[in-house]
Amino acid sequence: MDAIQDHYPEELAHCYGCGRLNEAGHRIKTRWDGDETVTVYQPRPEHIAIPGYVYGGLLASLVDCHGTGSAALAAYRAAGRDPAADDGQPPLRFVTGSLQVNYLKPTPLGPPVELRGRIEEISDRKVRTAVSVTVEGQEVVSGSVLAVRMPDTMHPA
Amino acid sequence: MDAIQDHYPEELAHCYGCGRLNEAGHRIKTRWDGDETVTVYQPRPEHIAIPGYVYGGLLASLVDCHGTGSAALAAYRAAGRDPAADDGQPPLRFVTGSLQVNYLKPTPLGPPVELRGRIEEISDRKVRTAVSVTVEGQEVVSGSVLAVRMPDTMHPA
Repeated sequence: MDAIQDHYPEELAHCYGCGRLNEAGHRIKTRWDGDETVTVYQPRPEHIAIPGYVYGGLLASLVDCHGTGSAALAAYRAAGRDPAADDGQPPLRFVTGSLQVNYLKPTPLGPPVELRGRIEEISDRKVRTAVSVTVEGQEVVSGSVLAVRMPDTMHPA
Repeated sequence: MDAIQDHYPEELAHCYGCGRLNEAGHRIKTRWDGDETVTVYQPRPEHIAIPGYVYGGLLASLVDCHGTGSAALAAYRAAGRDPAADDGQPPLRFVTGSLQVNYLKPTPLGPPVELRGRIEEISDRKVRTAVSVTVEGQEVVSGSVLAVRMPDTMHPA
């Protein structure tokens, strides 16, 4: 399946974390894998904390954008809509309400990091996703993202 | 007063968020202002979320590094040590244990963002800092960082 970010409307596809049109950004891609959502990201050498380890702010950013992407995937699935289809209905785009990140152990810098999301709560306006970050099969970070439907006032004119 | 990051030992000054030696990074500077800690950061144009607003992952990163910097400042003050002095004792460097970020309202992209920290708890191994992020005097984000003394096993050889 496509990533949800491939179907964000163009005017909403500039996010540094997950916008496909932001050339300086991370351009993460979030997909379903059964009932879980998955993003894989390759940290760059400059994403260093203490030498040898990934900078925690990058991991927080990935958890954040994985959470809003997961929320959009879940909202489309719950509505029985296909994010790839031009169905004339407004896009389901989410922003972060709150973010919790627990650094369980230092994250080695080098291999890709994998984020997996589990949808914990879903309503019309909010989606809560539990996120687990692993490197080479070992969990390094856990987190939780409360995403809220993007307010109309934030929509670019 | 100097920023705490000016006194991180060279081998611990590469962090993407706050290392003075990371040319690609944010290189934030965290100082005391009375009993509060302060960091001011100018987001770059690419740090966009929805057009017109700052990407939440950047704000999470800033809260994170402001929290570890604040923890180091507080630990030096509590120990009666001067971070600028070469006193022969081991440096007091912290990493993030957990991070909570609440996005109170969309953060306009353009003006500098100011982070202020209030030390809530301090012990030998842990410091908790409450962080408030404002833009032009309006609070946009609140957060909390639990920082822990860097484990010896993370220290570069």
